[in-house]
Amino acid sequence: MKFFLQYLPIHQWGRQYTVLQFRDDFLAAFIVTVMLIPQALAYALIAGLPPQVGLYASILPLFAYSLFGSSRGLSVGPVAVLSLMTAVSLGKLALIPGEQYLMAALTLAFLTGLFLLLLGVMRLGFLANFMSHPVVSGFITASAIIIILSQVQHLLGTSSSGYTLLTLIPTLLASTSLINLPTAALSTLMLVWLFWARSGMVRLLLKMGLSGKAALLCARFSPVVAVVVSSLCVLGLGLGAKGVAIIGQVPSGLPSLAMPEFSLEMWRVLAGSAALLGTIGFVESISVAQGMAARRRERIDPNQELIGLGVANIASSVSGGFPVAGSFSRSIVNRDAGAATQAAGLIAAILVAVVSVFLTPVLSAFPKATLAATIVAAAWSLVDFSVLRKAWRYSKADFFAAGVTIALTLFSGVEIGVAAGILVSLLIHLYKTSRPHVVEVGEVPGTEHFRNIERHQVETHASILSIRVDESLYFANSRFLEDALYSMVSKRDELKHVILMCTAVNEVDLSALESILAINQRLREQGIKLHMSEVKGPVMDSLVRVDFLTKLTGNVYMSQHQAVEALRDSKS
Amino acid sequence: MKFFLQYLPIHQWGRQYTVLQFRDDFLAAFIVTVMLIPQALAYALIAGLPPQVGLYASILPLFAYSLFGSSRGLSVGPVAVLSLMTAVSLGKLALIPGEQYLMAALTLAFLTGLFLLLLGVMRLGFLANFMSHPVVSGFITASAIIIILSQVQHLLGTSSSGYTLLTLIPTLLASTSLINLPTAALSTLMLVWLFWARSGMVRLLLKMGLSGKAALLCARFSPVVAVVVSSLCVLGLGLGAKGVAIIGQVPSGLPSLAMPEFSLEMWRVLAGSAALLGTIGFVESISVAQGMAARRRERIDPNQELIGLGVANIASSVSGGFPVAGSFSRSIVNRDAGAATQAAGLIAAILVAVVSVFLTPVLSAFPKATLAATIVAAAWSLVDFSVLRKAWRYSKADFFAAGVTIALTLFSGVEIGVAAGILVSLLIHLYKTSRPHVVEVGEVPGTEHFRNIERHQVETHASILSIRVDESLYFANSRFLEDALYSMVSKRDELKHVILMCTAVNEVDLSALESILAINQRLREQGIKLHMSEVKGPVMDSLVRVDFLTKLTGNVYMSQHQAVEALRDSKS
Repeated sequence: MKFFLQYLPIHQWGRQYTVLQFRDDFLAAFIVTVMLIPQALAYALIAGLPPQVGLYASILPLFAYSLFGSSRGLSVGPVAVLSLMTAVSLGKLALIPGEQYLMAALTLAFLTGLFLLLLGVMRLGFLANFMSHPVVSGFITASAIIIILSQVQHLLGTSSSGYTLLTLIPTLLASTSLINLPTAALSTLMLVWLFWARSGMVRLLLKMGLSGKAALLCARFSPVVAVVVSSLCVLGLGLGAKGVAIIGQVPSGLPSLAMPEFSLEMWRVLAGSAALLGTIGFVESISVAQGMAARRRERIDPNQELIGLGVANIASSVSGGFPVAGSFSRSIVNRDAGAATQAAGLIAAILVAVVSVFLTPVLSAFPKATLAATIVAAAWSLVDFSVLRKAWRYSKADFFAAGVTIALTLFSGVEIGVAAGILVSLLIHLYKTSRPHVVEVGEVPGTEHFRNIERHQVETHASILSIRVDESLYFANSRFLEDALYSMVSKRDELKHVILMCTAVNEVDLSALESILAINQRLREQGIKLHMSEVKGPVMDSLVRVDFLTKLTGNVYMSQHQAVEALRDSKS
Repeated sequence: MKFFLQYLPIHQWGRQYTVLQFRDDFLAAFIVTVMLIPQALAYALIAGLPPQVGLYASILPLFAYSLFGSSRGLSVGPVAVLSLMTAVSLGKLALIPGEQYLMAALTLAFLTGLFLLLLGVMRLGFLANFMSHPVVSGFITASAIIIILSQVQHLLGTSSSGYTLLTLIPTLLASTSLINLPTAALSTLMLVWLFWARSGMVRLLLKMGLSGKAALLCARFSPVVAVVVSSLCVLGLGLGAKGVAIIGQVPSGLPSLAMPEFSLEMWRVLAGSAALLGTIGFVESISVAQGMAARRRERIDPNQELIGLGVANIASSVSGGFPVAGSFSRSIVNRDAGAATQAAGLIAAILVAVVSVFLTPVLSAFPKATLAATIVAAAWSLVDFSVLRKAWRYSKADFFAAGVTIALTLFSGVEIGVAAGILVSLLIHLYKTSRPHVVEVGEVPGTEHFRNIERHQVETHASILSIRVDESLYFANSRFLEDALYSMVSKRDELKHVILMCTAVNEVDLSALESILAINQRLREQGIKLHMSEVKGPVMDSLVRVDFLTKLTGNVYMSQHQAVEALRDSKS
């Protein structure tokens, strides 16, 4: 029992739940729900799914996360980037639109959930760290651009296909003849309103005496205002007959529970996509959750978050939804509105359920163009190329990783983009550590400090070569070390002692141990002794276990200073 | 012109070639050829190819390597492990035996060569370092076991199929009724001879006054003696009629030159296998080449070796051969017999060509059982489980990598085994660096050295927290650092200064920079200043480029000692 309870954070916070907390949670949940409803419909649109799927993905998953999640402020549900990735993953399959496409979406959510759940139970949350900051930023920016372009068809009433610049732009250009003027006019109005709301309106409200927080919260509601006002316009002016597309009938009622169909073939095809969706969803969610937790001095357990998000996705798949994650924008609203516990998510789930049962006729009047405009406005704020400028100045390797991610995401698609980004980051890291900085050091006169002979004025001795290796020694660089060391030794005739200064050596694996022993042997043949200094505790422990010290021709010294003092006058 | 010449080492050594060198090279080439002929036939047998393919892979590839290779002693040609891998790769395809199977082998050699050549030209030789020592040892051991088991059918005259324990053992057991007694008797005799030759005979020769080197060289010829004697037996006793299988007709003449068929589908299927074959072939060859070069104080350029092996494989594919690499056993013989330059390989190629033209009728009488016995004897010396014992004592991570490689190679096949080994090594490395050793340090009284407060008696101050991070800071551990640091800070009330001691920080990438800035900001909110000490030159250079120092609340000190001295009495 206890084993299972450790995976249920609600077991802890639920016991101390107070009426005061409920009041705060309810208010936050209400505000989040108002914001969530149009988003849920819009993101289903991105994913190529019927609008009610967005609602379904906002009921049971929220409920599941509030039981299993560890973040108090995270608002789970449909998010833009995962919706795009869902569309891309399913687009690869030759599916019959409708039932079969929906079934594939459920399966994708199920596999994404399973992937996250397994990572969580196996405590592999650290794997998400392999998405470096430049790769994530680059990916989000490029995805946002693709999302914006994919919505242009709804803004203009034209049509487009594909999810890369190479397909979106030509198909959009080819369909310009289809532009529907009323739709385009409505979209323009809505875009102007949405962009004004977050700059001009905020300034206006501040001038009128509202607090900064209140003004920003008002701005957050601009999409809701847009949807309501434009729906009324469409109904009042009869724009539907003039070609302005509306969502159309949304079935009312709650989703029915059912396991997604088990098809080994479909699992095989979607497994890779699910892993990428899960990784991206987790990285986005954990960033938001940790950012919020740190401000309140709380801690987030990454493995528990994996479990929470995993269960939420499985919940989505069994209740007619699609892949979900923590939403950045809604989480901020949730926190600013005062959410105290995970119960806020639970209450929001109930409110969305109420809407699904009673208010779907209202939703069906929402114009697609307005939803597209809200998506564009939201995605626009994700586009940020500053990472490129920053990385260019700071490190070309990071710039390259970000650049590859952005270019491939735009031109080859989200999956290849993010996979290549991860791969490139890892390869760059491995490349760098495989060619460590190996320098000769000497003593700064009058101190016990040793520094690079090329950067500082230092003392050296003809019979002693002091070498500092600025990297852990492991299989990827052990051969490099041998090469570097031999070439340094070959230039010195009077050499009697080589001292390896290990301040920066945090690990010596078996491959590196064999290399050091080979170096030791080779130097012995040349009458040179090998010593080591400043070996770290954990490294020393391993070396002692294999009787390394009896094989070493020289000694291990506590400090480089002691080593040089002991060896400078020795005759051996 | 110069651009191309840099890729042709013969351009250098060829100009200074002497008659004396030719004499040495010729002798070595002759000895190697005598050894190579039965090996070439036997390895073609392992790969499931006709015997002459082994000969063809020993002509043009040797010629090509002697032009492009940088190692003076490496003997290129068919090798056991690559032959096994070839059989496995082609076994995955549903090929018609004969022409189609051969064509696939040529294509595999071509792709392997292309892969190596590209890596070489792109100077990516460092990638081969990612095969750690335990993974390579484990893989060689497990492959040798599979090779031995795959030869049992030839030793007994039975039949088996597959290349994992799970298929080899059951099929062998199921075919025991086919055992041919004359074949089994011949095999037993030959195995006894081959194993005795390398221990008993060597001791005997030493007693008779031969030098150690000469005795070992004699032992190397035991396979040739075995093949010649058993062929004579088969012919003399008419064992062919009693069911002892011989190689049978080997077409005489030189291979004809032809490009392997270009089939995109086959390229796609074989690309992964080619990459694995290339990697394994390169790692084996470079280990042998570097070992020999180091003893002669020469240098091997890994990228030039890639080019040499790449061209050799392409040469093999256009002349009816299969994938080749540097052979450990033949290279040792080559060196011990006195080979002076790459010309030894060129001469060996000519000698093999002569054999192919004039002596194939002799080869066709070789009994398959004897060839199998020589394979078993050779592979037996590759089986070495000591790496497991060594790794178990030294580091559990290395043990795990070796264990996974051995188990998967034996039970799931060579390709999965080696791929999993590489992957596991990398993941273990990344896992370790993603959770660096972060410790609080204090000053050893009377010195300027700082050591872990848990391992040493040191001085600390209530207002100062000195933290040493034993790892470069990069995307995989930047979040871990934040967590570790916040949890250390939260336990200290009087804290005014945090000093990050960066002796072991060899790199700070953009993700880590953002983390340090976040830490800086968070500490500022709590009235704590962040300082750094002992920042390495290259790291400092990057930090200065992005005006990091103006954002840092504290200072950067040359040494931890100076930092503590400056801050211990400060009132700020």
